[in-house]
Amino acid sequence: MQPLYEGKAKRLYTTQEQDVLRIVYKDEATAFNGEKKAEFAGKGELNNRLTSHFFEVLEAADIPTHFIERISEREQLVRRVTIIPLEVVVRNVVAGSLSKRLGIEEGTVLETPIVEFYYKDDSLGDPLVTRAHINLLKIATTEELDLLEQEANRVNAVLRPYFDEKGITLVDFKLEYGKTPTGEILLADEISPDTCRLWDKETGEHLDKDVFRRNIGSLIDTYQTLFNRLGGNTQ
Amino acid sequence: MQPLYEGKAKRLYTTQEQDVLRIVYKDEATAFNGEKKAEFAGKGELNNRLTSHFFEVLEAADIPTHFIERISEREQLVRRVTIIPLEVVVRNVVAGSLSKRLGIEEGTVLETPIVEFYYKDDSLGDPLVTRAHINLLKIATTEELDLLEQEANRVNAVLRPYFDEKGITLVDFKLEYGKTPTGEILLADEISPDTCRLWDKETGEHLDKDVFRRNIGSLIDTYQTLFNRLGGNTQ
Ligand SMILES: Nc1ncnc2c1ncn2[C@@H]1O[C@H](COP(=O)(O)OP(=O)(O)OP(=O)(O)O)[C@@H](O)[C@H]1O
Ligand SMILES: Nc1ncnc2c1ncn2[C@@H]1O[C@H](COP(=O)(O)OP(=O)(O)OP(=O)(O)O)[C@@H](O)[C@H]1O
Ligand SMILES: [Mg+2]
Ligand SMILES: [Mg+2]
Repeated sequence: MQPLYEGKAKRLYTTQEQDVLRIVYKDEATAFNGEKKAEFAGKGELNNRLTSHFFEVLEAADIPTHFIERISEREQLVRRVTIIPLEVVVRNVVAGSLSKRLGIEEGTVLETPIVEFYYKDDSLGDPLVTRAHINLLKIATTEELDLLEQEANRVNAVLRPYFDEKGITLVDFKLEYGKTPTGEILLADEISPDTCRLWDKETGEHLDKDVFRRNIGSLIDTYQTLFNRLGGNTQ
Repeated sequence: MQPLYEGKAKRLYTTQEQDVLRIVYKDEATAFNGEKKAEFAGKGELNNRLTSHFFEVLEAADIPTHFIERISEREQLVRRVTIIPLEVVVRNVVAGSLSKRLGIEEGTVLETPIVEFYYKDDSLGDPLVTRAHINLLKIATTEELDLLEQEANRVNAVLRPYFDEKGITLVDFKLEYGKTPTGEILLADEISPDTCRLWDKETGEHLDKDVFRRNIGSLIDTYQTLFNRLGGNTQ
């Protein structure tokens, strides 16, 4: 069966139901806009479990998401949406591109979390965009951006203390939102160590894809450790 | 006499008066954050004349600027300010970095002008910043940014029709603002073909520093042509 869309981390398939998609999590990891690539047996399963768990945590906090259910080791069902082509990034601590852009040391805790928008366009390298840019690209209205920013802050308000209780700092994360045919805006895509920066509160150890980006550890061991720390198979 | 500050295009000197500086316009042209460099005899004089003229046009429209007077071929007196480390860019037509960032063709006219902020930091390459970034860098308050954006739009509302009457499209330009000791915010620095994109309305010919950046013509001939078209020595 042909996927509807094959991305770097997931394959999407249509189902019998018009507005339901099946997502298959792949074992591939990529970084730097696809320049660095590798396969890790078990990654798809771990990310499927982790992202399903985080969406359940968010649903329990009344945050509307595309998530329906995890149906197998690598698969989940989600509501089909039209993705708004923005990466909505929330940051609690300076790291990665923000550190480079502003010349602020990695690890600097932000007084207030910040939300950034990046234009989802691989050929342009997913550039940072301002509200004026988004407006001229006609990607979203000002009201929709206000909603995205508010919703992203709500996700942070749920996940930051959730990780904190487990001894983990939620440094930053990337969200994607989509619109249902009736115009409802849902949190979509994934939330996983591929899309979050997670640091051990005590040791500073990276519990996310930076171990792959920066060659500082085994991706599978790291994702498995994270999975165990969050409650492992009890999910 | 030692300059207070020597930049790529100008030297600043203190004067007898505490709050007055003397600016000397240099013949040097630079591009790409100083990577490309050359001297053009006569450039300093032309830019001193052009920037003085534009500041006079703006003062006549009640826009508060640092400009006091042109005192010689290369020199002008200005009010001393503490520069707010932002490049305030106003765009009427897509060109340069905006075209590359968003993948929109150069020459696309914007429905509404847009204002962007870049962090003035050569070592970081003057990166684009959002309001959230400016806020966390504590460069300016939200109210000050609102004022800068409004003032930059006012400058555009004066200069765009001014150039239009001369058969020239004001494509985009960069402004710098500074604060006086009493907290007044003034338009500072320069407005010249070094800091504007100006296109002939009929032919599309570049009448600005892009002739140097892109090796598409003589800088001095271009700046002299612009000077003549704006009224030449009658200034
Ligand atoms: N509920 C959904 N409905 C429709 N599309 C979705 C949904 N959730 C996620 N997607 C999209 O699925 C695609 C596949 O995900 P994957 O992470 O593999 O893509 P990617 O390699 O990151 O590429 P892209 O640049 O398209 O995001 C992404 O484009 C994502 O936006
Ligand atoms: N009225 C003023 N008071 C104080 N400083 C000013 C004033 N007007 C302009 N400046 C500053 O004068 C400096 C010299 O100008 P020049 O254009 O040569 O600098 P530059 O090479 O562009 O470097 P920079 O990155 O510092 O702007 C700039 O830093 C500019 O911000
Ligand atoms: Mg993805
Ligand atoms: Mg300058």
